[in-house]
Amino acid sequence: MFSRRILAGIQPSNVPHLGNYLGAIKRWVELQNSGEHLIVMLADLHAVTLPRDPKILRQTILETTSSLLACGINPDKSIIYRQSQLPHHTTLAWLMGTLATVQQISHIPTYKSKVKDEESIPLGLFMYPILQSADILLFKSTHIPVGEDQLPHLHLCTTLIEKFYHIYKKELFPMPKPMFTETNRIRSLRHPENKMSKSDADPRGRIDIMDTEDLIRDRVMKAVTDFESRITYDPENRPGVSNLIDIFSGLTGEMQEDIVERAQLEGLNTKEFKEKLIKIIIEHFKPFRIKYLELMNDHSYIYDVLQQGQAKAAVIADQTLNEVKQTMGLD
Amino acid sequence: MFSRRILAGIQPSNVPHLGNYLGAIKRWVELQNSGEHLIVMLADLHAVTLPRDPKILRQTILETTSSLLACGINPDKSIIYRQSQLPHHTTLAWLMGTLATVQQISHIPTYKSKVKDEESIPLGLFMYPILQSADILLFKSTHIPVGEDQLPHLHLCTTLIEKFYHIYKKELFPMPKPMFTETNRIRSLRHPENKMSKSDADPRGRIDIMDTEDLIRDRVMKAVTDFESRITYDPENRPGVSNLIDIFSGLTGEMQEDIVERAQLEGLNTKEFKEKLIKIIIEHFKPFRIKYLELMNDHSYIYDVLQQGQAKAAVIADQTLNEVKQTMGLD
Repeated sequence: MFSRRILAGIQPSNVPHLGNYLGAIKRWVELQNSGEHLIVMLADLHAVTLPRDPKILRQTILETTSSLLACGINPDKSIIYRQSQLPHHTTLAWLMGTLATVQQISHIPTYKSKVKDEESIPLGLFMYPILQSADILLFKSTHIPVGEDQLPHLHLCTTLIEKFYHIYKKELFPMPKPMFTETNRIRSLRHPENKMSKSDADPRGRIDIMDTEDLIRDRVMKAVTDFESRITYDPENRPGVSNLIDIFSGLTGEMQEDIVERAQLEGLNTKEFKEKLIKIIIEHFKPFRIKYLELMNDHSYIYDVLQQGQAKAAVIADQTLNEVKQTMGLD
Repeated sequence: MFSRRILAGIQPSNVPHLGNYLGAIKRWVELQNSGEHLIVMLADLHAVTLPRDPKILRQTILETTSSLLACGINPDKSIIYRQSQLPHHTTLAWLMGTLATVQQISHIPTYKSKVKDEESIPLGLFMYPILQSADILLFKSTHIPVGEDQLPHLHLCTTLIEKFYHIYKKELFPMPKPMFTETNRIRSLRHPENKMSKSDADPRGRIDIMDTEDLIRDRVMKAVTDFESRITYDPENRPGVSNLIDIFSGLTGEMQEDIVERAQLEGLNTKEFKEKLIKIIIEHFKPFRIKYLELMNDHSYIYDVLQQGQAKAAVIADQTLNEVKQTMGLD
């Protein structure tokens, strides 16, 4: 009844890191190129959940968009646009939000984990899952590539769909299904007990995919391993080396076991393995980086792409929102 | 720096009652006719804070609009439009909402008084004051005709203005000032200890301004008074009779003391005073009722008026929202 449509959201925080790329962007490009109907939403309304410097936000929107295009998101095949440019998101969030209770959102674990000061909880953080539900529903998305930590949000979304149906007896929305990506797998290069993250205080834990060759080399060489120089895959006991193998695997598509076997055959120690990995990372991202720098030289082209995406997204969003408003008597 | 602009909001619940008329609508019409820049917003997004029957909602939007026009809101002088038709409201609510905390809204007394089940608080009820702030800010409203019970909402609005200025160093909004109307003064005809209210379980407590002459007569004749037949004004000890005098005063513009003095001179008892009042109510609303019935026969005209109002409101709303988005880096 509902045609397959995938909504992928990304906060325009700036150039994505290796973890974002391997866990999300690379997968999105594969989905796009396999013929899926993909919508990539730059979640800039979510980005202002906590106040941002407007100048930096403008810059990071450009960087994120250029990175996505450089990595292969193709505006002729997929829709790529900025959430803040479609007012439909917040209107649908208000309308669907009337079906939720304060308690339902309060109990979402991701929300609770982000709260630092119980006495002063930013409202944007609290309302985030409602807006996210609206994002999904606006495009009648059938599949959402999310990590496991996002499942409670998806659960809220299905609850709202059920409530809407219960009250208005209209089946406007498909039940969105999660598509698990491996977002969480790539770890910090400095603290492999944590995921690689933009918010890591230590920038050396991270490789941004448009980093220079020198920086990539430096980051990998300084990646924490352990006292054993042999290459083995053991995420629990040897998280540092295993993380490097995961990156290797993610970029080449080879299985971890095969990588390890070859490294052992070649008698590589961790330093030598790192050198091999550096080459692979640099080679993988070189064409992307060239394209990225090209794009960053032509802001008007990026804005054009986003505007065209917005026009395409608006067609779908208009239709959904009109259906919802009509159902609720707000037409 | 900011030109005077008055935002008046009304829930499209259906034909307004005498309390709405005397406390709000009559004042709005006077403001409009004195040359003020008045915007009348049919708060249909607030109306769905709790789910409504869509058919009834469509009907009550027509009834409320027709009533307002019949009472003298003039679409050539004022803007009258439906909130749900301008997506700007919810977008601004999201953006300004990021400046609030969960605690700030939780502590608003009107919110707390409306909560019936602490375990299952509708999110729409919780978020209501944020949307209301956005309504005010969207038009850079300088004056808001509200009852005293709405002051905490206005306080939230000024807090958001201050926070916005604190973060972004831009003075986009005037501080809205309350214009006290006497919304609360007209009491239920059956239970004068309460205000006249749409949600009163006993419909005999209320006169809707488009009621038939027979119904008006019946409602006034059955209005609760007391065992004393003389006409005196004493809201505390004689709330029933005093309420009738207030209605008389509201419709004729005469002072309560003068009304009482004349009634005493004429030697009227409460029944005779009621008969006099009935005539005044019927005479006052007769032309409105004729106009109202005329309008209710021509839905397309009402929709036209609302659409024209919407177009005018959109010009102001576009500008404000663009300024806010630009300030936040979301342009």
